Amino acid sequence: MLRGQMLAQQSCGQCFGTSTRTVLAAFRSARSRGFRAGPSNTSASVAALDPAKLGKCWLVGAGPGPADYLTMKAVRLLQTADVVVYDDLGSQDALGFVSPATELVYVGKRGGRESIKQPQIDELLVARCAEGRNVVRLKGGCPSVFSRLASEVAALRAADIPYELVPGVSSALAAPLFAGFPLTHVTLSPSFTVLSGHDPDSIDWGALARLPTLVLLMGGRRLGDIVARLQDTGWPTDTPVVVIRAAGLSQQQVWHSRLDRVETDTANVESLSPCVVVIGRVAEFTDGLRMLSAK
Amino acid sequence: MLRGQMLAQQSCGQCFGTSTRTVLAAFRSARSRGFRAGPSNTSASVAALDPAKLGKCWLVGAGPGPADYLTMKAVRLLQTADVVVYDDLGSQDALGFVSPATELVYVGKRGGRESIKQPQIDELLVARCAEGRNVVRLKGGCPSVFSRLASEVAALRAADIPYELVPGVSSALAAPLFAGFPLTHVTLSPSFTVLSGHDPDSIDWGALARLPTLVLLMGGRRLGDIVARLQDTGWPTDTPVVVIRAAGLSQQQVWHSRLDRVETDTANVESLSPCVVVIGRVAEFTDGLRMLSAK
Repeated sequence: MLRGQMLAQQSCGQCFGTSTRTVLAAFRSARSRGFRAGPSNTSASVAALDPAKLGKCWLVGAGPGPADYLTMKAVRLLQTADVVVYDDLGSQDALGFVSPATELVYVGKRGGRESIKQPQIDELLVARCAEGRNVVRLKGGCPSVFSRLASEVAALRAADIPYELVPGVSSALAAPLFAGFPLTHVTLSPSFTVLSGHDPDSIDWGALARLPTLVLLMGGRRLGDIVARLQDTGWPTDTPVVVIRAAGLSQQQVWHSRLDRVETDTANVESLSPCVVVIGRVAEFTDGLRMLSAK
Repeated sequence: MLRGQMLAQQSCGQCFGTSTRTVLAAFRSARSRGFRAGPSNTSASVAALDPAKLGKCWLVGAGPGPADYLTMKAVRLLQTADVVVYDDLGSQDALGFVSPATELVYVGKRGGRESIKQPQIDELLVARCAEGRNVVRLKGGCPSVFSRLASEVAALRAADIPYELVPGVSSALAAPLFAGFPLTHVTLSPSFTVLSGHDPDSIDWGALARLPTLVLLMGGRRLGDIVARLQDTGWPTDTPVVVIRAAGLSQQQVWHSRLDRVETDTANVESLSPCVVVIGRVAEFTDGLRMLSAK
């Protein structure tokens, strides 16, 4: 697809908030942006009839945000993609690697706007690949963890679009390191369990009662509810809890607390999101280590 | 430290197996290599008395092996390190980024040789940093997961050596993606638990009975024992099991099985190590997706 065609493509203002525009403007001055699931021009839609001209879709983990934690493969794919479809990311660093000729499509939920529905995203990925364009579907963290991968992969598969899953650095594992401790320890933490706090009612909390270490993603808004449920199922009230907000970013904040105090300790924070919460004795390590890791 | 001093440094043949020598030879023709915890020359040991001249130690995840999955930060650190102390890695790709002037020290256990003990590794890291040299301690996967981090960090801390923990791509999360499926799914897998199969007697298997998804690292040798214990605690015999050997490498192999058959299905394999085993219904996804992911 020629750049002239892309620049002529109509932009859909509803799909791009002001804040996103502002951020993107820092990377380049003039750019076509639009969320349109349909083919972007008539000739490209004809190409979709020829399987040899199908594009490929890479579903790629962007890590916690800073460019430092992008993989070499993610960078190469971003540099060569025809289209980059991206979620809310820890930072906009990854977009700095994208070529000016590449179409950027934001499908996140930031800024309180009505979010784009998952079927629209699925349709977009298929449509762009059907035009013969190579698409990077960029997701925060690692696509293995709470990334709505199944829906997108099912859509690509149904359309016989080739795709590839590309792992990234998950904040579930990285955030504790940024706070100064690992998730495993030979005696304190022989295993760890990663779960989402987005919908506490959907979790079988009793099944987690005898585990050593929990890593809670998307649990900021329901933290009080969650720690209450854990105490109800027998977790000791003095279990160490570490809350890491904006892990790996310059604005990172870390709270060291315990199960019965963490809600109070973080009560004055306007928003804990995005955050990673580690619950378990392995988090005790932090108290000893954090001083030095700040060096 | 001058390169001439490093080249004059005595090499300790006991610490380097033939296979490692051969691999390293592919990267450079002449190189100083040695495992010596003590200062490598007298003048350097004097520098250890001056805190301003201490080196720093980065404990860095190398990911599953291929250079593709190294982070940008890992590459930069490898390019600029004075010393790289490395374990058994998925591949030797990471070492290709190391400068010829850098001292490379292998502390892994490959090849059936007697392994270097952890206190020796701890001592080595402290000694090199005390000489004022910057050290990368390179670990396979992510330092957050089964990396013996606590001992090394405690040693660095006791010696007041500055250090930093640098996350990488863990094979626990990456291997399922390479096999075609994610670890989470909105209904099939609202959480996942990562554990080591190295010592099944140390695991409270009953505590894992009601979990949706287990990710077993270092479980290849004891797989039959482990699947028997899981069935004893109530896991259905038809629970899907996917075994991913050498995840992400050219020699990757994947077996799709179930709890009551996986030992038989992998019985003819000479060695399953290194492998990641995913147990749970989320692995059912693979059957539908693997055909396309091979494209």
